[in-house]
Amino acid sequence: MGRTEFRIGVVAPGSRIEPALAEKTRALAASLFPDAPPELRFHPQCFRSSGHFAGEDGERAQAFVDMANDAGLDAVWFARGGYGACRIAERVLAGVTDMARRKVYLGYSDAGALMAGLYKAGFARLAHGPMPVDLTRSGGAAAVARALAFLVQGAPDALEPTVSAGAPTAAFNITVLSHLLGTPLEPDLAGHVLMLEEVAEPMYRIDRALFQITSHPGMRRLAGIRLGRCSPIPPNDPDFGQSEAQIVAYWCERSGIPYLGRADIGHDIDNKVVPFGRYMAAGED
Amino acid sequence: MGRTEFRIGVVAPGSRIEPALAEKTRALAASLFPDAPPELRFHPQCFRSSGHFAGEDGERAQAFVDMANDAGLDAVWFARGGYGACRIAERVLAGVTDMARRKVYLGYSDAGALMAGLYKAGFARLAHGPMPVDLTRSGGAAAVARALAFLVQGAPDALEPTVSAGAPTAAFNITVLSHLLGTPLEPDLAGHVLMLEEVAEPMYRIDRALFQITSHPGMRRLAGIRLGRCSPIPPNDPDFGQSEAQIVAYWCERSGIPYLGRADIGHDIDNKVVPFGRYMAAGED
Repeated sequence: MGRTEFRIGVVAPGSRIEPALAEKTRALAASLFPDAPPELRFHPQCFRSSGHFAGEDGERAQAFVDMANDAGLDAVWFARGGYGACRIAERVLAGVTDMARRKVYLGYSDAGALMAGLYKAGFARLAHGPMPVDLTRSGGAAAVARALAFLVQGAPDALEPTVSAGAPTAAFNITVLSHLLGTPLEPDLAGHVLMLEEVAEPMYRIDRALFQITSHPGMRRLAGIRLGRCSPIPPNDPDFGQSEAQIVAYWCERSGIPYLGRADIGHDIDNKVVPFGRYMAAGED
Repeated sequence: MGRTEFRIGVVAPGSRIEPALAEKTRALAASLFPDAPPELRFHPQCFRSSGHFAGEDGERAQAFVDMANDAGLDAVWFARGGYGACRIAERVLAGVTDMARRKVYLGYSDAGALMAGLYKAGFARLAHGPMPVDLTRSGGAAAVARALAFLVQGAPDALEPTVSAGAPTAAFNITVLSHLLGTPLEPDLAGHVLMLEEVAEPMYRIDRALFQITSHPGMRRLAGIRLGRCSPIPPNDPDFGQSEAQIVAYWCERSGIPYLGRADIGHDIDNKVVPFGRYMAAGED
Protein backbone atom coordinates (compact mmCIF):
# COMPACT_ATOMS: atom_id res chain seq x y z
CA MET A 1 0.00 0.00 0.00
CA GLY A 2 1.50 3.30 -1.03
CA ARG A 3 1.70 6.17 1.37
CA THR A 4 1.28 9.48 -0.40
CA GLU A 5 -0.35 11.80 2.08
CA PHE A 6 1.40 13.96 4.65
CA ARG A 7 0.65 12.96 8.23
CA ILE A 8 0.46 15.51 11.02
CA GLY A 9 0.14 14.69 14.69
CA VAL A 10 -1.55 17.38 16.76
CA VAL A 11 -0.90 17.79 20.49
CA ALA A 12 -1.75 20.40 23.15
CA PRO A 13 1.13 20.91 25.60
CA GLY A 14 -0.64 23.85 27.24
CA SER A 15 -4.37 24.56 27.17
CA ARG A 16 -7.07 22.30 25.71
CA ILE A 17 -9.16 22.63 22.54
CA GLU A 18 -12.69 21.51 21.73
CA PRO A 19 -13.25 18.44 19.51
CA ALA A 20 -15.22 20.68 17.13
CA LEU A 21 -12.05 22.63 16.39
CA ALA A 22 -10.34 19.41 15.32
CA GLU A 23 -13.19 18.67 12.91
CA LYS A 24 -13.10 22.19 11.55
CA THR A 25 -9.34 21.96 10.97
CA ARG A 26 -9.72 18.61 9.18
CA ALA A 27 -12.48 20.02 6.98
CA LEU A 28 -10.27 22.97 6.04
CA ALA A 29 -7.36 20.67 5.22
CA ALA A 30 -9.62 18.52 3.04
CA SER A 31 -10.87 21.55 1.13
CA LEU A 32 -7.33 22.90 0.60
CA PHE A 33 -5.84 19.63 -0.62
CA PRO A 34 -8.75 17.88 -2.39
CA ASP A 35 -6.54 15.39 -4.24
CA ALA A 36 -4.35 14.31 -1.33
CA PRO A 37 -5.51 15.81 1.96
CA PRO A 38 -3.00 15.55 4.78
CA GLU A 39 -3.97 13.28 7.62
CA LEU A 40 -4.53 15.26 10.80
CA ARG A 41 -4.26 13.00 13.82
CA PHE A 42 -5.43 14.91 16.91
CA HIS A 43 -4.19 13.14 20.02
CA PRO A 44 -7.12 12.57 22.45
CA GLN A 45 -5.02 14.47 24.99
CA CYS A 46 -5.93 17.69 23.14
CA PHE A 47 -9.45 17.44 24.52
CA ARG A 48 -8.57 16.38 28.05
CA SER A 49 -8.92 18.77 30.96
CA SER A 50 -7.04 19.08 34.26
CA GLY A 51 -7.45 22.49 35.88
CA HIS A 52 -5.75 25.01 33.59
CA PHE A 53 -4.28 22.35 31.32
CA ALA A 54 -5.21 19.90 28.53
CA GLY A 55 -4.68 16.98 30.91
CA GLU A 56 -2.14 16.35 33.65
CA ASP A 57 1.54 17.07 33.05
CA GLY A 58 2.27 13.36 32.56
CA GLU A 59 -0.48 12.94 29.95
CA ARG A 60 0.58 15.99 28.00
CA ALA A 61 4.25 14.99 28.05
CA GLN A 62 3.45 11.43 26.97
CA ALA A 63 1.19 12.57 24.15
CA PHE A 64 3.92 14.83 22.81
CA VAL A 65 6.58 12.12 23.08
CA ASP A 66 4.31 9.54 21.42
CA MET A 67 3.60 11.82 18.48
CA ALA A 68 7.22 12.99 18.18
CA ASN A 69 8.59 9.42 18.14
CA ASP A 70 5.89 7.99 15.82
CA ALA A 71 7.51 6.77 12.59
CA GLY A 72 4.18 7.17 10.78
CA LEU A 73 4.02 10.94 11.22
CA ASP A 74 5.80 13.71 9.31
CA ALA A 75 5.07 16.65 11.57
CA VAL A 76 3.95 17.63 15.05
CA TRP A 77 1.63 20.63 15.25
CA PHE A 78 0.78 22.47 18.45
CA ALA A 79 -3.02 22.73 18.64
CA ARG A 80 -2.94 25.82 20.82
CA GLY A 81 -0.84 27.89 23.22
CA GLY A 82 -2.37 29.04 26.47
CA TYR A 83 -0.03 27.93 29.21
CA GLY A 84 1.69 24.72 30.21
CA ALA A 85 4.50 23.76 27.80
CA CYS A 86 7.27 24.75 30.24
CA ARG A 87 5.92 22.27 32.79
CA ILE A 88 6.43 19.27 30.49
CA ALA A 89 9.60 20.27 28.66
CA GLU A 90 11.96 18.29 30.90
CA ARG A 91 9.98 15.06 30.39
CA VAL A 92 9.59 15.63 26.66
CA LEU A 93 13.29 16.24 26.15
CA ALA A 94 14.09 13.07 28.09
CA GLY A 95 11.65 11.02 25.99
CA VAL A 96 12.24 11.99 22.36
CA THR A 97 14.31 9.71 20.11
CA ASP A 98 16.18 10.22 16.84
CA MET A 99 12.90 9.56 15.03
CA ALA A 100 11.57 12.77 16.57
CA ARG A 101 14.39 14.78 15.03
CA ARG A 102 13.18 14.06 11.48
CA LYS A 103 9.84 15.81 11.94
CA VAL A 104 8.67 19.35 11.39
CA TYR A 105 7.29 21.13 14.50
CA LEU A 106 5.02 24.17 14.22
CA GLY A 107 3.48 26.40 16.87
CA TYR A 108 3.87 29.73 18.71
CA SER A 109 3.08 31.58 21.93
CA ASP A 110 3.31 29.17 24.90
CA ALA A 111 4.75 26.56 22.50
CA GLY A 112 7.94 28.63 22.60
CA ALA A 113 8.99 26.97 25.85
CA LEU A 114 9.14 23.57 24.14
CA MET A 115 10.53 24.97 20.90
CA ALA A 116 13.38 26.51 22.88
CA GLY A 117 14.17 23.20 24.55
CA LEU A 118 13.99 21.24 21.29
CA TYR A 119 16.14 23.81 19.51
CA LYS A 120 18.72 23.62 22.26
CA ALA A 121 18.64 19.83 21.86
CA GLY A 122 19.58 20.23 18.19
CA PHE A 123 16.20 19.78 16.48
CA ALA A 124 16.56 21.31 13.02
CA ARG A 125 12.98 21.61 11.69
CA LEU A 126 11.21 23.86 14.18
CA ALA A 127 9.09 26.83 13.14
CA HIS A 128 7.04 29.59 14.78
CA GLY A 129 3.68 29.91 13.06
CA PRO A 130 -0.10 29.47 13.11
CA MET A 131 -1.93 26.70 14.97
CA PRO A 132 -5.39 25.10 14.68
CA VAL A 133 -6.68 27.45 17.41
CA ASP A 134 -6.22 30.36 14.99
CA LEU A 135 -9.39 29.08 13.25
CA THR A 136 -11.30 30.64 16.16
CA ARG A 137 -10.22 34.12 14.95
CA SER A 138 -12.30 35.98 12.40
CA GLY A 139 -10.66 35.18 9.06
CA GLY A 140 -8.48 32.60 10.80
CA ALA A 141 -8.72 30.12 7.91
CA ALA A 142 -6.05 32.18 6.14
CA ALA A 143 -3.63 31.61 9.02
CA VAL A 144 -4.32 27.88 9.27
CA ALA A 145 -4.11 27.47 5.48
CA ARG A 146 -0.69 29.17 5.62
CA ALA A 147 0.43 26.75 8.33
CA LEU A 148 -0.75 23.75 6.30
CA ALA A 149 0.92 25.07 3.12
CA PHE A 150 4.15 25.33 5.09
CA LEU A 151 3.83 21.90 6.70
CA VAL A 152 2.66 19.96 3.66
CA GLN A 153 4.39 21.78 0.81
CA GLY A 154 7.10 23.87 2.48
CA ALA A 155 5.49 26.80 0.66
CA PRO A 156 7.99 29.70 0.58
CA ASP A 157 5.22 32.33 0.64
CA ALA A 158 4.19 31.10 4.09
CA LEU A 159 7.49 32.43 5.45
CA GLU A 160 7.95 35.79 7.13
CA PRO A 161 9.21 37.93 4.23
CA THR A 162 12.58 38.86 5.76
CA VAL A 163 13.49 35.21 6.39
CA SER A 164 16.46 34.34 4.16
CA ALA A 165 19.22 31.81 3.88
CA GLY A 166 21.58 34.57 4.96
CA ALA A 167 21.03 34.47 8.70
CA PRO A 168 19.48 32.01 11.12
CA THR A 169 16.19 33.16 12.62
CA ALA A 170 14.02 32.46 15.65
CA ALA A 171 10.73 33.85 16.88
CA PHE A 172 9.14 34.04 20.30
CA ASN A 173 6.41 35.66 22.29
CA ILE A 174 8.18 38.32 24.36
CA THR A 175 6.81 37.22 27.74
CA VAL A 176 7.34 33.52 27.07
CA LEU A 177 10.98 34.08 26.09
CA SER A 178 11.65 36.31 29.09
CA HIS A 179 10.44 33.55 31.42
CA LEU A 180 12.88 31.04 29.88
CA LEU A 181 15.97 33.11 30.68
CA GLY A 182 18.14 31.67 33.41
CA THR A 183 16.52 28.23 33.03
CA PRO A 184 17.77 25.10 31.25
CA LEU A 185 15.37 25.97 28.40
CA GLU A 186 16.99 29.29 27.53
CA PRO A 187 18.03 29.08 23.87
CA ASP A 188 21.43 30.04 22.45
CA LEU A 189 20.51 32.50 19.71
CA ALA A 190 23.96 33.93 18.98
CA GLY A 191 24.05 35.17 15.40
CA HIS A 192 20.27 34.84 14.95
CA VAL A 193 17.73 37.41 13.92
CA LEU A 194 15.20 37.20 16.76
CA MET A 195 11.60 38.11 15.94
CA LEU A 196 9.38 39.00 18.89
CA GLU A 197 5.63 39.46 19.25
CA GLU A 198 3.25 40.05 22.13
CA VAL A 199 -0.41 39.92 23.01
CA ALA A 200 -2.42 41.63 25.73
CA GLU A 201 0.52 42.90 27.80
CA PRO A 202 0.63 46.52 29.04
CA MET A 203 3.55 48.66 27.85
CA TYR A 204 5.36 48.60 31.17
CA ARG A 205 5.48 44.81 31.01
CA ILE A 206 6.75 44.85 27.45
CA ASP A 207 9.45 47.26 28.63
CA ARG A 208 10.37 45.07 31.62
CA ALA A 209 10.62 41.92 29.48
CA LEU A 210 12.77 43.76 26.93
CA PHE A 211 15.05 44.91 29.77
CA GLN A 212 15.49 41.26 30.68
CA ILE A 213 15.96 39.91 27.18
CA THR A 214 18.41 42.60 26.06
CA SER A 215 20.36 42.50 29.35
CA HIS A 216 21.03 38.77 28.97
CA PRO A 217 24.66 38.22 27.93
CA GLY A 218 23.73 35.52 25.41
CA MET A 219 21.08 37.70 23.78
CA ARG A 220 23.68 40.42 23.27
CA ARG A 221 25.20 38.13 20.64
CA LEU A 222 22.03 38.26 18.49
CA ALA A 223 22.43 39.42 14.89
CA GLY A 224 19.45 41.66 15.58
CA ILE A 225 15.86 41.96 16.77
CA ARG A 226 12.75 42.47 14.66
CA LEU A 227 9.47 43.42 16.32
CA GLY A 228 6.25 41.73 15.31
CA ARG A 229 2.84 42.96 16.34
CA CYS A 230 1.91 43.61 19.99
CA SER A 231 -1.84 43.46 20.14
CA PRO A 232 -4.15 44.31 21.76
CA ILE A 233 -2.18 46.37 24.31
CA PRO A 234 -4.27 47.19 27.41
CA PRO A 235 -4.20 50.83 28.56
CA ASN A 236 -1.16 51.81 30.64
CA ASP A 237 -1.86 54.07 33.64
CA PRO A 238 -0.33 56.60 33.21
CA ASP A 239 0.27 56.58 29.45
CA PHE A 240 3.64 54.91 28.99
CA GLY A 241 4.92 57.64 26.72
CA GLN A 242 6.55 55.30 24.20
CA SER A 243 5.25 52.91 21.54
CA GLU A 244 6.28 49.26 21.50
CA ALA A 245 8.64 49.95 18.58
CA GLN A 246 10.26 52.79 20.54
CA ILE A 247 10.69 50.49 23.54
CA VAL A 248 12.41 47.80 21.49
CA ALA A 249 14.58 50.34 19.66
CA TYR A 250 15.54 51.88 23.05
CA TRP A 251 16.62 48.57 24.58
CA CYS A 252 18.41 47.52 21.40
CA GLU A 253 20.41 50.74 21.37
CA ARG A 254 21.22 50.44 25.06
CA SER A 255 22.37 46.85 24.73
CA GLY A 256 24.19 47.13 21.40
CA ILE A 257 21.83 44.72 19.64
CA PRO A 258 20.90 45.91 16.11
CA TYR A 259 17.21 46.82 15.81
CA LEU A 260 16.20 45.70 12.34
CA GLY A 261 12.61 46.98 12.13
CA ARG A 262 9.29 45.19 12.07
CA ALA A 263 8.43 41.52 11.51
CA ASP A 264 5.23 40.13 10.01
CA ILE A 265 4.27 37.96 12.99
CA GLY A 266 1.78 38.24 15.85
CA HIS A 267 -1.24 36.75 17.58
CA ASP A 268 -3.38 37.34 14.50
CA ILE A 269 -4.39 35.90 11.15
CA ASP A 270 -1.44 37.51 9.32
CA ASN A 271 1.11 35.63 11.45
CA LYS A 272 3.81 34.34 9.07
CA VAL A 273 6.08 31.33 9.58
CA VAL A 274 9.57 31.83 11.06
CA PRO A 275 11.98 28.87 11.04
CA PHE A 276 14.34 28.31 13.96
CA GLY A 277 17.86 28.41 12.61
CA ARG A 278 18.34 27.89 8.91
CA TYR A 279 15.23 25.88 8.19
CA MET A 280 15.58 22.53 6.43
CA ALA A 281 12.53 21.02 4.76
CA ALA A 282 11.69 17.42 5.69
CA GLY A 283 13.99 15.04 3.81
CA GLU A 284 16.93 17.46 3.65
CA ASP A 285 19.91 16.81 5.83
CA MET B 1 24.88 72.26 66.57
CA GLY B 2 24.20 68.70 67.67
CA ARG B 3 22.64 66.21 65.28
CA THR B 4 20.31 63.85 67.08
CA GLU B 5 17.55 62.99 64.65
CA PHE B 6 17.60 60.20 62.09
CA ARG B 7 17.64 61.45 58.51
CA ILE B 8 15.91 59.57 55.73
CA GLY B 9 16.17 60.39 52.04
CA VAL B 10 13.16 59.37 49.98
CA VAL B 11 13.41 58.62 46.25
CA ALA B 12 11.12 57.11 43.60
CA PRO B 13 13.06 54.91 41.15
CA GLY B 14 9.83 53.72 39.52
CA SER B 15 6.48 55.49 39.59
CA ARG B 16 5.77 58.96 41.04
CA ILE B 17 3.93 59.99 44.20
CA GLU B 18 1.88 63.06 45.01
CA PRO B 19 3.35 65.82 47.22
CA ALA B 20 0.40 65.31 49.61
CA LEU B 21 1.68 61.79 50.36
CA ALA B 22 5.02 63.23 51.41
CA GLU B 23 3.26 65.60 53.81
CA LYS B 24 1.13 62.80 55.20
CA THR B 25 4.22 60.63 55.76
CA ARG B 26 6.02 63.49 57.56
CA ALA B 27 2.98 64.10 59.76
CA LEU B 28 2.85 60.43 60.71
CA ALA B 29 6.57 60.40 61.54
CA ALA B 30 6.14 63.52 63.70
CA SER B 31 3.26 61.91 65.61
CA LEU B 32 5.18 58.66 66.14
CA PHE B 33 8.40 60.29 67.37
CA PRO B 34 7.21 63.48 69.13
CA ASP B 35 10.50 64.06 70.99
CA ALA B 36 12.88 63.52 68.05
CA PRO B 37 11.02 63.07 64.78
CA PRO B 38 13.17 61.69 61.96
CA GLU B 39 13.82 64.08 59.12
CA LEU B 40 12.15 62.89 55.94
CA ARG B 41 13.77 64.47 52.91
CA PHE B 42 11.67 63.71 49.83
CA HIS B 43 13.75 64.31 46.71
CA PRO B 44 11.80 66.58 44.30
CA GLN B 45 12.25 63.80 41.76
CA CYS B 46 9.54 61.83 43.60
CA PHE B 47 6.93 64.24 42.23
CA ARG B 48 8.28 64.50 38.69
CA SER B 49 6.53 62.85 35.78
CA SER B 50 7.80 61.43 32.49
CA GLY B 51 5.37 59.01 30.88
CA HIS B 52 5.13 56.00 33.17
CA PHE B 53 7.92 57.16 35.44
CA ALA B 54 8.73 59.66 38.21
CA GLY B 55 10.98 61.61 35.85
CA GLU B 56 13.34 60.52 33.10
CA ASP B 57 15.76 57.66 33.70
CA GLY B 58 18.64 60.10 34.17
CA GLU B 59 16.77 62.15 36.78
CA ARG B 60 15.69 59.11 38.75
CA ALA B 61 19.17 57.60 38.70
CA GLN B 62 20.79 60.88 39.75
CA ALA B 63 18.29 61.40 42.59
CA PHE B 64 19.03 57.93 43.93
CA VAL B 65 22.80 58.39 43.66
CA ASP B 66 22.64 61.83 45.31
CA MET B 67 20.65 60.49 48.25
CA ALA B 68 22.75 57.33 48.57
CA ASN B 69 26.05 59.27 48.61
CA ASP B 70 24.83 62.07 50.91
CA ALA B 71 26.87 62.01 54.14
CA GLY B 72 24.03 63.78 55.96
CA LEU B 73 21.54 60.93 55.51
CA ASP B 74 21.20 57.66 57.44
CA ALA B 75 18.79 55.80 55.18
CA VAL B 76 17.30 55.73 51.69
CA TRP B 77 13.63 54.85 51.50
CA PHE B 78 11.82 53.92 48.30
CA ALA B 79 8.67 56.09 48.11
CA ARG B 80 6.83 53.62 45.93
CA GLY B 81 7.18 50.70 43.55
CA GLY B 82 5.24 50.75 40.31
CA TYR B 83 7.77 50.15 37.55
CA GLY B 84 11.11 51.59 36.56
CA ALA B 85 13.91 50.59 38.97
CA CYS B 86 15.46 48.09 36.52
CA ARG B 87 15.96 50.87 33.96
CA ILE B 88 18.22 52.90 36.26
CA ALA B 89 20.07 50.13 38.10
CA GLU B 90 23.16 50.21 35.86
CA ARG B 91 23.61 53.98 36.35
CA VAL B 92 22.95 53.78 40.09
CA LEU B 93 25.48 51.00 40.59
CA ALA B 94 28.07 52.98 38.65
CA GLY B 95 27.45 56.09 40.74
CA VAL B 96 27.31 54.98 44.38
CA THR B 97 30.35 55.48 46.62
CA ASP B 98 31.49 53.91 49.90
CA MET B 99 29.34 56.49 51.72
CA ALA B 100 26.29 54.79 50.17
CA ARG B 101 27.26 51.46 51.71
CA ARG B 102 26.76 52.77 55.26
CA LYS B 103 23.06 53.49 54.80
CA VAL B 104 19.94 51.46 55.36
CA TYR B 105 17.74 50.92 52.25
CA LEU B 106 14.08 49.96 52.53
CA GLY B 107 11.46 49.16 49.89
CA TYR B 108 9.70 46.34 48.07
CA SER B 109 7.93 45.37 44.83
CA ASP B 110 9.61 47.11 41.86
CA ALA B 111 12.36 48.25 44.27
CA GLY B 112 13.57 44.65 44.18
CA ALA B 113 15.42 45.29 40.91
CA LEU B 114 17.66 47.86 42.61
CA MET B 115 17.87 45.91 45.86
CA ALA B 116 19.13 42.92 43.88
CA GLY B 117 21.82 44.99 42.21
CA LEU B 118 22.90 46.66 45.46
CA TYR B 119 22.99 43.31 47.26
CA LYS B 120 25.13 41.84 44.50
CA ALA B 121 27.43 44.88 44.89
CA GLY B 122 27.90 43.97 48.58
CA PHE B 123 25.55 46.44 50.26
CA ALA B 124 24.86 45.01 53.73
CA ARG B 125 21.89 46.99 55.06
CA LEU B 126 19.09 46.34 52.58
CA ALA B 127 15.59 45.35 53.62
CA HIS B 128 12.27 44.46 51.98
CA GLY B 129 9.44 46.31 53.69
CA PRO B 130 6.76 49.01 53.65
CA MET B 131 7.06 52.31 51.79
CA PRO B 132 5.35 55.71 52.07
CA VAL B 133 2.87 54.69 49.35
CA ASP B 134 1.42 52.13 51.78
CA LEU B 135 -0.25 55.10 53.49
CA THR B 136 -2.73 55.07 50.60
CA ARG B 137 -4.04 51.67 51.81
CA SER B 138 -6.83 51.51 54.36
CA GLY B 139 -5.05 51.11 57.70
CA GLY B 140 -1.75 51.78 55.96
CA ALA B 141 -0.38 53.89 58.84
CA ALA B 142 0.43 50.61 60.61
CA ALA B 143 2.68 49.54 57.74
CA VAL B 144 4.45 52.88 57.49
CA ALA B 145 4.87 53.08 61.27
CA ARG B 146 6.49 49.62 61.13
CA ALA B 147 8.87 50.80 58.43
CA LEU B 148 9.82 53.88 60.45
CA ALA B 149 10.30 51.82 63.63
CA PHE B 150 12.66 49.60 61.66
CA LEU B 151 14.55 52.48 60.04
CA VAL B 152 14.85 54.73 63.09
CA GLN B 153 15.07 52.23 65.94
CA GLY B 154 15.89 48.91 64.27
CA ALA B 155 12.80 47.62 66.09
CA PRO B 156 12.95 43.79 66.18
CA ASP B 157 9.15 43.45 66.13
CA ALA B 158 9.10 45.06 62.68
CA LEU B 159 10.83 41.97 61.31
CA GLU B 160 9.10 39.05 59.63
CA PRO B 161 8.76 36.59 62.53
CA THR B 162 10.83 33.76 61.01
CA VAL B 163 13.81 36.05 60.38
CA SER B 164 16.67 34.89 62.60
CA ALA B 165 20.41 35.16 62.88
CA GLY B 166 20.54 31.50 61.82
CA ALA B 167 20.17 31.93 58.06
CA PRO B 168 20.49 34.82 55.65
CA THR B 169 17.19 35.97 54.15
CA ALA B 170 15.94 37.87 51.12
CA ALA B 171 12.50 38.83 49.89
CA PHE B 172 11.14 39.68 46.47
CA ASN B 173 8.00 40.11 44.48
CA ILE B 174 7.71 36.93 42.40
CA THR B 175 7.32 38.64 39.03
CA VAL B 176 10.05 41.21 39.70
CA LEU B 177 12.53 38.49 40.69
CA SER B 178 11.67 36.33 37.70
CA HIS B 179 12.44 39.24 35.36
CA LEU B 180 15.92 39.69 36.89
CA LEU B 181 17.04 36.15 36.09
CA GLY B 182 19.64 35.91 33.36
CA THR B 183 20.51 39.61 33.73
CA PRO B 184 23.45 41.27 35.51
CA LEU B 185 21.04 42.10 38.35
CA GLU B 186 20.22 38.49 39.23
CA PRO B 187 21.17 38.00 42.89
CA ASP B 188 23.23 35.14 44.31
CA LEU B 189 20.98 33.79 47.05
CA ALA B 190 22.79 30.51 47.77
CA GLY B 191 22.07 29.48 51.37
CA HIS B 192 19.34 32.11 51.81
CA VAL B 193 15.74 31.68 52.86
CA LEU B 194 13.90 33.42 50.00
CA MET B 195 10.51 34.95 50.84
CA LEU B 196 8.22 35.65 47.89
CA GLU B 197 5.02 37.62 47.51
CA GLU B 198 2.78 38.64 44.65
CA VAL B 199 -0.01 41.04 43.76
CA ALA B 200 -2.65 40.94 41.04
CA GLU B 201 -1.15 38.12 38.97
CA PRO B 202 -3.33 35.22 37.73
CA MET B 203 -2.38 31.73 38.93
CA TYR B 204 -0.92 30.65 35.60
CA ARG B 205 1.52 33.54 35.75
CA ILE B 206 2.49 32.71 39.32
CA ASP B 207 3.10 29.15 38.14
CA ARG B 208 5.19 30.29 35.16
CA ALA B 209 7.34 32.59 37.29
CA LEU B 210 7.88 29.80 39.84
CA PHE B 211 8.95 27.49 37.00
CA GLN B 212 11.56 30.06 36.08
CA ILE B 213 12.78 30.83 39.60
CA THR B 214 13.03 27.19 40.72
CA SER B 215 14.61 26.06 37.41
CA HIS B 216 17.45 28.56 37.80
CA PRO B 217 20.64 26.73 38.83
CA GLY B 218 21.58 29.41 41.36
CA MET B 219 18.17 29.37 43.00
CA ARG B 220 18.50 25.61 43.50
CA ARG B 221 21.12 26.46 46.13
CA LEU B 222 18.57 28.33 48.27
CA ALA B 223 18.16 27.17 51.88
CA GLY B 224 14.44 27.27 51.20
CA ILE B 225 11.45 29.29 50.01
CA ARG B 226 8.69 30.82 52.11
CA LEU B 227 5.54 32.12 50.45
CA GLY B 228 4.06 35.45 51.48
CA ARG B 229 0.63 36.63 50.42
CA CYS B 230 -0.50 36.69 46.79
CA SER B 231 -3.34 39.17 46.62
CA PRO B 232 -5.67 39.92 44.99
CA ILE B 233 -5.42 37.08 42.46
CA PRO B 234 -7.58 37.75 39.36
CA PRO B 235 -9.79 34.86 38.19
CA ASN B 236 -8.04 32.20 36.12
CA ASP B 237 -9.98 30.87 33.12
CA PRO B 238 -10.38 27.94 33.56
CA ASP B 239 -9.89 27.58 37.31
CA PHE B 240 -6.21 26.80 37.78
CA GLY B 241 -6.91 23.86 40.05
CA GLN B 242 -4.17 24.67 42.57
CA SER B 243 -3.70 27.34 45.23
CA GLU B 244 -0.61 29.57 45.27
CA ALA B 245 0.80 27.55 48.18
CA GLN B 246 0.29 24.31 46.23
CA ILE B 247 2.06 25.84 43.24
CA VAL B 248 5.08 26.88 45.30
CA ALA B 249 5.20 23.53 47.11
CA TYR B 250 4.99 21.74 43.73
CA TRP B 251 7.89 23.64 42.19
CA CYS B 252 9.95 23.35 45.37
CA GLU B 253 9.52 19.59 45.40
CA ARG B 254 10.32 19.31 41.70
CA SER B 255 13.46 21.39 42.05
CA GLY B 256 14.71 20.04 45.36
CA ILE B 257 14.39 23.41 47.14
CA PRO B 258 12.91 23.06 50.66
CA TYR B 259 9.46 24.65 50.96
CA LEU B 260 9.37 26.16 54.43
CA GLY B 261 5.77 27.39 54.65
CA ARG B 262 4.29 30.87 54.70
CA ALA B 263 5.91 34.27 55.25
CA ASP B 264 4.28 37.35 56.76
CA ILE B 265 4.87 39.64 53.78
CA GLY B 266 2.76 40.96 50.92
CA HIS B 267 1.34 44.02 49.19
CA ASP B 268 -0.72 44.91 52.27
CA ILE B 269 -0.61 46.65 55.63
CA ASP B 270 0.71 43.57 57.45
CA ASN B 271 3.85 43.43 55.31
CA LYS B 272 6.78 42.78 57.69
CA VAL B 273 10.42 43.70 57.18
CA VAL B 274 12.84 41.13 55.71
CA PRO B 275 16.57 41.96 55.73
CA PHE B 276 18.77 40.93 52.80
CA GLY B 277 21.46 38.63 54.17
CA ARG B 278 22.16 38.76 57.87
CA TYR B 279 20.99 42.27 58.57
CA MET B 280 23.35 44.68 60.32
CA ALA B 281 21.90 47.78 61.99
CA ALA B 282 23.51 51.11 61.05
CA GLY B 283 26.77 51.54 62.97
CA GLU B 284 27.57 47.82 63.13
CA ASP B 285 30.34 46.47 60.97
